[in-house]
Amino acid sequence: MTKVHNFSAGPGILPAEVLKQAAEACINFDNLNLSLLEISHRSKNYEKVMEESRAMVKELLGLNDNYKVLFLGGGASLQFAMVPFNLLFTEGTAGYVNTGVWATKAIKEAKLIGNTQVIASSEDKNFNYIPKGYEIPSTLDYLHITSNNTIYGTQMKEFPKTTVPLVCDMSSDIFSRKVNGNDFSLIYAGAQKNMGPAGATMVAVDETKLGKTGRKLLSMMDYQVHIKGDSMYNTPPVFPIYVTMLTLKWLKNNGGIPWIEQLNQQKADTLYSEIDRNSMFVGTTAKEDRSHMNVTFVMHKPELEVEFDKLAKEANLSGLKGHRDVGGYRASLYNALPLESVNALVQVMQAFEKKFA
Amino acid sequence: MTKVHNFSAGPGILPAEVLKQAAEACINFDNLNLSLLEISHRSKNYEKVMEESRAMVKELLGLNDNYKVLFLGGGASLQFAMVPFNLLFTEGTAGYVNTGVWATKAIKEAKLIGNTQVIASSEDKNFNYIPKGYEIPSTLDYLHITSNNTIYGTQMKEFPKTTVPLVCDMSSDIFSRKVNGNDFSLIYAGAQKNMGPAGATMVAVDETKLGKTGRKLLSMMDYQVHIKGDSMYNTPPVFPIYVTMLTLKWLKNNGGIPWIEQLNQQKADTLYSEIDRNSMFVGTTAKEDRSHMNVTFVMHKPELEVEFDKLAKEANLSGLKGHRDVGGYRASLYNALPLESVNALVQVMQAFEKKFA
Repeated sequence: MTKVHNFSAGPGILPAEVLKQAAEACINFDNLNLSLLEISHRSKNYEKVMEESRAMVKELLGLNDNYKVLFLGGGASLQFAMVPFNLLFTEGTAGYVNTGVWATKAIKEAKLIGNTQVIASSEDKNFNYIPKGYEIPSTLDYLHITSNNTIYGTQMKEFPKTTVPLVCDMSSDIFSRKVNGNDFSLIYAGAQKNMGPAGATMVAVDETKLGKTGRKLLSMMDYQVHIKGDSMYNTPPVFPIYVTMLTLKWLKNNGGIPWIEQLNQQKADTLYSEIDRNSMFVGTTAKEDRSHMNVTFVMHKPELEVEFDKLAKEANLSGLKGHRDVGGYRASLYNALPLESVNALVQVMQAFEKKFA
Repeated sequence: MTKVHNFSAGPGILPAEVLKQAAEACINFDNLNLSLLEISHRSKNYEKVMEESRAMVKELLGLNDNYKVLFLGGGASLQFAMVPFNLLFTEGTAGYVNTGVWATKAIKEAKLIGNTQVIASSEDKNFNYIPKGYEIPSTLDYLHITSNNTIYGTQMKEFPKTTVPLVCDMSSDIFSRKVNGNDFSLIYAGAQKNMGPAGATMVAVDETKLGKTGRKLLSMMDYQVHIKGDSMYNTPPVFPIYVTMLTLKWLKNNGGIPWIEQLNQQKADTLYSEIDRNSMFVGTTAKEDRSHMNVTFVMHKPELEVEFDKLAKEANLSGLKGHRDVGGYRASLYNALPLESVNALVQVMQAFEKKFA
């Protein structure tokens, strides 16, 4: 098979060995002579998958015992509603930092549920930077932030220091760098970037914060219901969770967060250096907020994009087209992307410069 | 590999050829040299999967043009809330027929949303029959029924005749027999029995019935939002939907609903005949309501269960343990279960009788 360099923004690249194991489980899971797709989620063999997945999330995020880990369906978009349902008091106010389209969607849903205040935003510059130095009212029920903004290529290098409970959408950079999970009351992430395939969403929540809002919740919207059911209140997305477990194992076995953080730094440094050096391209975000996951850049002469696309295709580079809100290019450097793929992209950028500068 | 006869109640058996294709897609999807698990859901190749899945549901249910087909995350349990949000008027009343645990859960969620009336129930006899001959108030916004009850082994052989919009949870018998989809305003089904693996839920809804309740809906709870986004308002459960498409193709290519209905009849007849003939066993449900999908039976001498379990294990019969609410045994005969597996079970029942009668 020809090696494809997969820069897709999400669902994104997964480790080859994980894909191989996932394929095997579709035929014969755990030597049961049955496919993972056709066994009960309440079987011993699958319950072990759930337990291991939860344990690895706790370990990788360094979470204390008061945290519970859930794997739910519905995507991060469902969390946009579940977070306020579970943490926003009926008479309280939730704070949001607006760093892009996904944060905007989270704010929209929260407003349908209760009082919501946007306390900082980078909308004025098409979200090409992370707001800093804003005041956080101590009366907020929680402050919602987005650690990495896939579309714009910005990333919070430091998280707000506050006594207000922090809620973080880490969908696009979870497990990519060291964070102290205990600094957050709730972390959620759709699996389909650094964790696994589409269809599962991870929620890690400080259980002591739940059940206090005065709201009567629908069962599927209630974290306490899902905690009580060990994420099996209803049938969970079995296969996406299994592949998540495989991916977390791959991460752990290769050296865990310290290993991946260093590799991700190296990949990002390599690509940003080339963007800054290369006379044909320019980065789109504030330098201090540049994401290590999604690298966005445009061309000085957009009319040459078609030529660059040709070279990229010849070199088997895939998924580089920028989001329509930013244009140009976006290279997503998720955990499973090897340095080799970044080098392949850099070579194409250099060949392009040589030819067209 | 030893052949295992998979009677699991769900997630349940899928066709071997589907599992093989699913495994292949984990490695190389559509000759892209990329895994299905790591490509964009907005790629042309995947959009085709969504289109084909929708088209096959419409074809197999015989749906008119006013129906839209959705594939969502969150399971049928999320539909317990989405149905009343979208169809129950703020001042209206929803009617429910209570035929088991899942219907009871649907009623519980609806009650949190608006006025709900249980118009018939078989709770008096542990749900071992389907209520009949009840009055349906013509003022209801909708009537919610469950076509097949996995736990108890009952199935509606005829659907209520009424001018009230019918909503049906078909999770455990969809595509197993001929139904006129146009008799229902909304049909929903978790994939993990006759359709595919866990993680995707199909909703087929008469679009003309939507947007009329006077409710302001959360985006993820709004069928109109998902229709507008072609089930891609957020990242869909990519792999579960793909396997659903493969399973529907398998069904269609083998002769569609007429073929499977006849096969399912044959499987059910074979097993129920043996239950009625065999002196060791007795069926648990009213004969006229016996499910073709989940066959429940108990032993006259429960102390011999351990002996039967031994014989079943030797014959590679898997997933026969009854639900704790009914006890005894449950053989699920979903679409992909071959007649050969039913024959294997019957042989074990006969050998058991010979030895212990």
